[in-house]
Amino acid sequence: MVMKPSDIRMSFRTEENTGTTSGMCEKYTQANLVTLPKAYAFDFLLFCMRNPKPCPLVEVMEAGQTVPKVAEADIRTDLPRYRIYRDGKFTEEVLNISDVWQEDFVTFLIGCSFTFEQALLDEGIPLFHQVQKKVVPMFDTTIPLETAGIFKGNMVVSMRAVPNELVQRALSISDRFEQSHGSPVHIGDPEEIGITDLQKPDYGEAVDFDPAKVTPVFWACGVTPQNAALQAKPTIMITHAPGHMLITDQMDANY
Amino acid sequence: MVMKPSDIRMSFRTEENTGTTSGMCEKYTQANLVTLPKAYAFDFLLFCMRNPKPCPLVEVMEAGQTVPKVAEADIRTDLPRYRIYRDGKFTEEVLNISDVWQEDFVTFLIGCSFTFEQALLDEGIPLFHQVQKKVVPMFDTTIPLETAGIFKGNMVVSMRAVPNELVQRALSISDRFEQSHGSPVHIGDPEEIGITDLQKPDYGEAVDFDPAKVTPVFWACGVTPQNAALQAKPTIMITHAPGHMLITDQMDANY
Repeated sequence: MVMKPSDIRMSFRTEENTGTTSGMCEKYTQANLVTLPKAYAFDFLLFCMRNPKPCPLVEVMEAGQTVPKVAEADIRTDLPRYRIYRDGKFTEEVLNISDVWQEDFVTFLIGCSFTFEQALLDEGIPLFHQVQKKVVPMFDTTIPLETAGIFKGNMVVSMRAVPNELVQRALSISDRFEQSHGSPVHIGDPEEIGITDLQKPDYGEAVDFDPAKVTPVFWACGVTPQNAALQAKPTIMITHAPGHMLITDQMDANY
Repeated sequence: MVMKPSDIRMSFRTEENTGTTSGMCEKYTQANLVTLPKAYAFDFLLFCMRNPKPCPLVEVMEAGQTVPKVAEADIRTDLPRYRIYRDGKFTEEVLNISDVWQEDFVTFLIGCSFTFEQALLDEGIPLFHQVQKKVVPMFDTTIPLETAGIFKGNMVVSMRAVPNELVQRALSISDRFEQSHGSPVHIGDPEEIGITDLQKPDYGEAVDFDPAKVTPVFWACGVTPQNAALQAKPTIMITHAPGHMLITDQMDANY
């Protein structure tokens, strides 16, 4: 039985469930989270607008607001895991952010490729990370981003190994999901975008596959802001833990 | 002979020319200007994103930047007239803003209905304000906007009196120009949107027409932020003077 978003979120709030959201609540939009003090919010909003492929905005919340429009959720407790960055360094992974919440925090919700995974499955494209119960592998790349104020850096991508004969289909399915990163940013040779070893992801977990039969396909990833934060060094920045998203109450319009 | 945008802008810079830009440099995009200290920039950017009809973003500049991407211009001198608002009150109209410029100023360029006026003329729709050499009449309305932080209020509209039989054509022409306010927000009875007297505009100048033969058509207007500023009361906010826009170097893609 498929659980409702509100039930799943409650299991995160009670910390009964703390794993990846990949494959949960099929067809509902999932979102990356970035929370920053308002002093950084203009630069970050501009960064998202200038880099819509890795940072498609689902919602921008007002300072201090904890309940978004896209989900009857408390964004401080209703994701399975969060990461805290201080002065550009990753310092802690936590199960809620109630204790560190500040009234001047502005939260950005950014589209996520998990949203189109069910569409891939429905059209016969296997998802190895789901079968192998792994967090989807994600990689830093050499693909440059447009700078905005203090935010700059390279794109982070998620990788799915797609059977060679299904690559074109995966491309055209994901292309419909513009608010969830849309079509891939790269297909094939990982070295062309600066990835040296597919078995050593920068985020998430490595997935087993037979390189002769599949092609690595790379989508822009909402973990990109975490990479940008390492360089921008805001005093504090909170994100979801890679692979551990906000599940919204909105069924994606592309289903 | 039609002057080039750079030549016209130079005539504004030297203050040889200080009038409305309506009808100038046909087919080039014109833009409204809003300049604010960076402390207000996040709220204002969010206000624009939530109200794309009156505030379609052409460009958002970095703090302290004076040369936009859309024009080889200095935005401190190359518009014919500016207005300065302090603590929510209109205090001065000036020909340049060099003396009041601050390093933390962020400038927003917002689409303008002047951009599609040539398309209206090309398809046989007369523009009474151009014939009568008036600044297009603009009105405060009761059409509410989405609030963002300190910015809120009602929409400002520009009015063009269109011969009855040409209203549908004016609608479909302007609809193409999405980044310049697009289709009208109201057609006909001004009282329905809170306008009591078409001969008493809140901005610009009244235009003569025969009410039996024409229909008033109202487009969302980039003066809307000036109305919002009256309520938000930022310490300082600079805008173009209504009708006195930035002429960019970009030919509108809809021509």
